[in-house]
Amino acid sequence: MSYKITGFETYDLRFPTSQHLDGSDAMNPDPDYSAAYVVLHTDSHELSGYGMTFTIGRGNELCIAAIQALARLLIGQSLHQLMAQPVLLYRKLTGDSQLRWVGPEKGVIHLAAAAVINAVWDLWARAQNKPVWRLICDMSPAEFAACVDFRYLSDALTQSQAIELLQRHEQSKSQRVQELLSEGYPSYTTSAGWLGYSDEALRGKCQDLKARGWTHFKIKVGRDLQDDLRRCQVLRAEMGPDAHMMVDANQVWDVPQAIEWISQLAKFDPWFVEEPTNPDDILGHREISQAIAPIRVASGEMCHNRIMFKQYLACGAMQVCQLDSCRLGGVNEVLAVMLLAARFGVPVCPHAGGVGLCEYVQHLSMIDYVCVSATQVDRVAEYSDHLHEYVCEPVVMKNGRYMPPQDSGYSVKFTDSAIHQFSFQ
Amino acid sequence: MSYKITGFETYDLRFPTSQHLDGSDAMNPDPDYSAAYVVLHTDSHELSGYGMTFTIGRGNELCIAAIQALARLLIGQSLHQLMAQPVLLYRKLTGDSQLRWVGPEKGVIHLAAAAVINAVWDLWARAQNKPVWRLICDMSPAEFAACVDFRYLSDALTQSQAIELLQRHEQSKSQRVQELLSEGYPSYTTSAGWLGYSDEALRGKCQDLKARGWTHFKIKVGRDLQDDLRRCQVLRAEMGPDAHMMVDANQVWDVPQAIEWISQLAKFDPWFVEEPTNPDDILGHREISQAIAPIRVASGEMCHNRIMFKQYLACGAMQVCQLDSCRLGGVNEVLAVMLLAARFGVPVCPHAGGVGLCEYVQHLSMIDYVCVSATQVDRVAEYSDHLHEYVCEPVVMKNGRYMPPQDSGYSVKFTDSAIHQFSFQ
Repeated sequence: MSYKITGFETYDLRFPTSQHLDGSDAMNPDPDYSAAYVVLHTDSHELSGYGMTFTIGRGNELCIAAIQALARLLIGQSLHQLMAQPVLLYRKLTGDSQLRWVGPEKGVIHLAAAAVINAVWDLWARAQNKPVWRLICDMSPAEFAACVDFRYLSDALTQSQAIELLQRHEQSKSQRVQELLSEGYPSYTTSAGWLGYSDEALRGKCQDLKARGWTHFKIKVGRDLQDDLRRCQVLRAEMGPDAHMMVDANQVWDVPQAIEWISQLAKFDPWFVEEPTNPDDILGHREISQAIAPIRVASGEMCHNRIMFKQYLACGAMQVCQLDSCRLGGVNEVLAVMLLAARFGVPVCPHAGGVGLCEYVQHLSMIDYVCVSATQVDRVAEYSDHLHEYVCEPVVMKNGRYMPPQDSGYSVKFTDSAIHQFSFQ
Repeated sequence: MSYKITGFETYDLRFPTSQHLDGSDAMNPDPDYSAAYVVLHTDSHELSGYGMTFTIGRGNELCIAAIQALARLLIGQSLHQLMAQPVLLYRKLTGDSQLRWVGPEKGVIHLAAAAVINAVWDLWARAQNKPVWRLICDMSPAEFAACVDFRYLSDALTQSQAIELLQRHEQSKSQRVQELLSEGYPSYTTSAGWLGYSDEALRGKCQDLKARGWTHFKIKVGRDLQDDLRRCQVLRAEMGPDAHMMVDANQVWDVPQAIEWISQLAKFDPWFVEEPTNPDDILGHREISQAIAPIRVASGEMCHNRIMFKQYLACGAMQVCQLDSCRLGGVNEVLAVMLLAARFGVPVCPHAGGVGLCEYVQHLSMIDYVCVSATQVDRVAEYSDHLHEYVCEPVVMKNGRYMPPQDSGYSVKFTDSAIHQFSFQ
């Protein structure tokens, strides 16, 4: 167990998704789903750790450069020491006295911290022969809370309050683990609703997904109101009245415009509206939330750290918490946000899609269910159909549900052929 | 006037300031003041544009890489077309559909946007043979407002409201220009109070600065309460009862701790407390503001965009607005924040120090005085004594006041010898 980190490699992987308009929305018309990918080597040839952060193309090279600046800090460290106090892993990779300036805890440097921190978790889980979700579900409440940096959170949640929260459901954890192993965890899908798809494509994708078991469908909106009205009608007709429709504006509106536009879409009975305005606008989201209730506001894929989430959750600006496995600084900070969401009674529905994100978030939703929320009410993890063939252990879906990963690690090891084919020059 | 941008060079300049503990504070113990510096070339050998962003050492290379990703977007553009609608310059450099993901408008990519956008302003001012402050002071209210991206601001400030704000003081602008040319603009200084200095050094620096005309002195706090109490006493005794003391915690406290600690320092009559907690914690700053009034809360050097400032200002979380010339996306976004501050009646006291920042902010405070606030009450621009010898046209101080720059451009062209001596390998 005394493995030492001896070096690392990085890979700038870019998948040319913009050619097919998969992933197109009102803010992101032409994404090339990309991974800034890091492999941590140890003094054992049998053990490496795999982590990535997600971008949509240009700028992936900046994350690679930032990963190089951060991964360097791990060389010579023993895995056992690093994970003896997991909060120190987070602090080490987000608290470098000079690098902190170019964040702090946001943007390129924080996306990179996620890749590196996640690679250490992957390594740790592999060393224990467990998938990451299982590794954390096996922790006691005190061990779980010891992963979290409570700095700047103490006005909302202290470490001892977090432990109390976790103790509520501690006794029943093993039942939920068994349930997950047989039933999986519910997902929703965005595969139908990209803005670049024709009405026919939208209809066909919806039929296909419905047949495969999904009951929640997300559609992108915000470019043109008449288009939105037509496309929402097509989707609602196809999915039926009982399924959940989510609409996603990808930050295109100002606050007053969001309130007006959503009022026009209300007749399609959306379950939530995602990213109605700029992700930094906590108070704007609160104003929208108050105006459009009972429709919920969902946000989080660009909410960059636990301090932002603390405010969103505490002031009623977010009714669905869509934390992102790469935007936040890795597993440690994700656990912090899950605890905050539980503290304020807001369901966690992690953001996914892209490449690698579904593989990550399946672990996170299982941790949330087993350790934190103990319920699946109003909880679905995002799912998208693309690019799973490029990881070694892709997600397994059954009837629209994520089946728990069985292999050890954090599930984002890329295949050799993906690395060969999609390395960016 | 139809210059075309034909290429650019970047320089990673790092000054080894950590060797002398200049710039040391509770969060940043060992900064090496650095500039990610860009030179834009045109089809005229006589005209280049100079811009930089500021970091404290490691991570400067990330800003350089991001500048390279962004400056590329300008090649082949005509300067005249770029500046015909200055808001489009901002949008072009912050709205790339893929690069936006690694911000948006924050962190490395936004620091880099500042360097590039400022280089275009420098170029434009040089082409007009004016310093940047004068270029903007010569604009009409409509032209000034046309520099600003009001996207995401309309719930607080619209373009037409901004024009109204600017029209209030339009008639009297030339008087204020004349006044500045003879009297300069007031500054305050942090040169005395770095955390790494001994009491003797603190006393000596304070005496020296007082003799040179300063009446506002800032001291770093937050590492150790007993130390702070002693050092504040030394400084207050040396500066006298009438001078303004500012204390700067550089984000070290949680919200409850900030309120408690500041209550202990209140007896030294601080004018403001700077960065009491994490810069993303708008609602935390509001709580502190309410608890410590009438002591003011100052923040802004890490407040990363106009959307964050909108909320800080609108909800009473900030009583002194310390915008940063590099953290915000260049001149355009600085103008947005000045307008927001005026809208909410909060004085602007720009952050400076480091390297190049004083050279930038002298322009900004003059613009604020001439066009926006029309008052110097409660307004001082930060000043620090270091590293001015490395720019071609360093600030000129008289009696603790910034004298208006006369040379054309934005004042951050580095000397050849600085580039030669401090280029980082």
